[in-house]
Amino acid sequence: MDYRPVITLTTDFGLADEFVASMKGVILSIAPETSIVDISHLVAHGNIKEGAFLLQRTYPFFPAGTIHCVVIDPGVGTDRHILATKSTGQVFVAPDNGLLSPILRDTDRLEAIHAVTNRSLFNTRVSNTFHGRDIMAPVAAHLAAGLNIKEVGDQLTCGDCVIVPQIKSKIQSSRLIGEIIHIDRFGNICTNITLSELANLSPTHDIIVHVGSYSISGMTKSYGHVGDGELLAHFDSHDHLEISVSGGSAALLTGSRPGSIVTVEQRKSHH
Amino acid sequence: MDYRPVITLTTDFGLADEFVASMKGVILSIAPETSIVDISHLVAHGNIKEGAFLLQRTYPFFPAGTIHCVVIDPGVGTDRHILATKSTGQVFVAPDNGLLSPILRDTDRLEAIHAVTNRSLFNTRVSNTFHGRDIMAPVAAHLAAGLNIKEVGDQLTCGDCVIVPQIKSKIQSSRLIGEIIHIDRFGNICTNITLSELANLSPTHDIIVHVGSYSISGMTKSYGHVGDGELLAHFDSHDHLEISVSGGSAALLTGSRPGSIVTVEQRKSHH
Amino acid sequence: MDYRPVITLTTDFGLADEFVASMKGVILSIAPETSIVDISHLVAHGNIKEGAFLLQRTYPFFPAGTIHCVVIDPGVGTDRHILATKSTGQVFVAPDNGLLSPILRDTDRLEAIHAVTNRSLFNTRVSNTFHGRDIMAPVAAHLAAGLNIKEVGDQLTCGDCVIVPQIKSKIQSSRLIGEIIHIDRFGNICTNITLSELANLSPTHDIIVHVGSYSISGMTKSYGHVGDGELLAHFDSHDHLEISVSGGSAALLTGSRPGSIVTVEQRKSHH
Repeated sequence: MDYRPVITLTTDFGLADEFVASMKGVILSIAPETSIVDISHLVAHGNIKEGAFLLQRTYPFFPAGTIHCVVIDPGVGTDRHILATKSTGQVFVAPDNGLLSPILRDTDRLEAIHAVTNRSLFNTRVSNTFHGRDIMAPVAAHLAAGLNIKEVGDQLTCGDCVIVPQIKSKIQSSRLIGEIIHIDRFGNICTNITLSELANLSPTHDIIVHVGSYSISGMTKSYGHVGDGELLAHFDSHDHLEISVSGGSAALLTGSRPGSIVTVEQRKSHH
Repeated sequence: MDYRPVITLTTDFGLADEFVASMKGVILSIAPETSIVDISHLVAHGNIKEGAFLLQRTYPFFPAGTIHCVVIDPGVGTDRHILATKSTGQVFVAPDNGLLSPILRDTDRLEAIHAVTNRSLFNTRVSNTFHGRDIMAPVAAHLAAGLNIKEVGDQLTCGDCVIVPQIKSKIQSSRLIGEIIHIDRFGNICTNITLSELANLSPTHDIIVHVGSYSISGMTKSYGHVGDGELLAHFDSHDHLEISVSGGSAALLTGSRPGSIVTVEQRKSHH
Repeated sequence: MDYRPVITLTTDFGLADEFVASMKGVILSIAPETSIVDISHLVAHGNIKEGAFLLQRTYPFFPAGTIHCVVIDPGVGTDRHILATKSTGQVFVAPDNGLLSPILRDTDRLEAIHAVTNRSLFNTRVSNTFHGRDIMAPVAAHLAAGLNIKEVGDQLTCGDCVIVPQIKSKIQSSRLIGEIIHIDRFGNICTNITLSELANLSPTHDIIVHVGSYSISGMTKSYGHVGDGELLAHFDSHDHLEISVSGGSAALLTGSRPGSIVTVEQRKSHH
């Protein structure tokens, strides 16, 4: 099969209005062969953290050459930059507001950062409130059609960009203290505690996970290994510690929100 | 025009999270020419009946060669099988939990059933909780790219698979007793009573349909043939008896739910 | 890159049910090369005004040759016509109920209007309640595959069609009186007052905008130019007067709805 470029779209535009479709029309006018993939358009209004999370979780599954266009842009029309970044053979176009932090922090894989300033690539008329349609979509389409990233504007360094630091879990008196970074549609509680961090602490069958006023003993393989409605701790499909309720919502049950604390301690031994 | 493979996706993953997009990235990495069509990602969490209903209503409209990937998978990570089934020239990939019942019950058209076990087709790392991304998406993509279904794993028979029996309407003292199988977005009440079953009972202008505490006399052609807010019975676009309110919700008006009873009786003659 | 036809879909079918996917299956069976773009499927049930608004805001961004298929069709199954219209090199297929008013009012660009009556283009079985799947999708696909619009049925004139007149703002004792035509997902209030109408009234820094019990002094460039939670008036990406709250909902704050009045007056000079 032939090569077809892929552009992904991640926005907070919702699914009812015309915004996403207008971007797609612009893209297909410039690069008609493109496969356009929606990552999500239901990012909470202006929630840059959530946009960055979705990007980080999905881009590794896309083919080399994919252009990711991420438009959560509360600063649209101000003097904030728009960035085009290349990393691991993929390109990322987004406002410079922290959205691309997962890409920009990973400096080993970073290939290029450019400010998007070349007006000849933009729509003829550029509005003050919709740079997704008037700047980022056409630039992404030109890149999909083969434009070299150097053509979009001047090169930048990481030091020129807004980078939100990663919140890491920490060890405090032999407890691992982490944070909830996402609640998904099922009410699964996704934490920043990784498999390798846990493995350093203790064998994973020998731990207790605390969230809200609940405690969970040991790690389980998957939802179906506990009874319906039961709370379990397991590693999610990105090797992060996740807390779930089989057939229910762990977030509702435990009253958790992004930012809440999750702790892991070694079970007291009775030998 | 050239041939382009089609993969459809039906899941309970919702539209806010990264799950669907990750599957699409995997598919386009393996089979970049594929047209990916979303059937629905708003199936209620773990609702296998609803997933099977959507599949049954849509697959007949897709071209030969289409791969339907259906991921409603509460048993992910347990020892449940994953199936690849061929019927009427189309292929269906889904966990073995009843989702493929409409395909597996239709034995006249069934061409092949295989267990999906060939690990060389899977993602390099297979998680315990996301086989949609790590097994079903790559297998569907390889099938779309031309892989013979025999390559996915050992052949099975219907007897090896979970098949949910179809709920048929029945005749009881000259009344037809059926069941509500779906409520759609408009509040239309879809039943398991078919045009031919009704025709066997009586001329369709000569019947009374009962739902909740409401009764409807005779069948109407379409919504626009009654006044706004009026209840009507008609044949839906799959020749099933449907109960609607023009410009409103029949489910809300009558307090109906999937599983509720609908009966049809002959009108008493006054000749 | 090669030419690939584009079909857009705008409906009130929602995202949970099988309706949209069935239309896509029909389209890909006839025209497998087509790129299908969803404009929106969340138009309120039977809301023709909203469908027309979305169409008007998006079609100018699509490439020549695009087929727009718009199915908000409360009169399905009655004797209402289905139209295929050509304008500015694009084609529009929709029931004749006012949906195509923005296209039909723009007579300078109108190239053709036809009634869709050629049954050889329809699905073999045509239901009474789903002409989107059985008539409009296959006709759109045949047009995408190269069929001349003349083949769909007899030519009509504007006088044969349902056209909803545009609501224009008006000047009354040196005030501009307009109307809210749309509330978007962010709660932005979109009005029918245009940049050029305002420019005729007064320099835009010298005006006061009234909505509900709120007044806004002067126009702002974009959201980021006021503080969080502050009300602003600006020109949207279609050069219409829009009222927003930075990081919030102007519709919620002011209690506005489509159809509510917005007025603009000159600020009293203190020279």
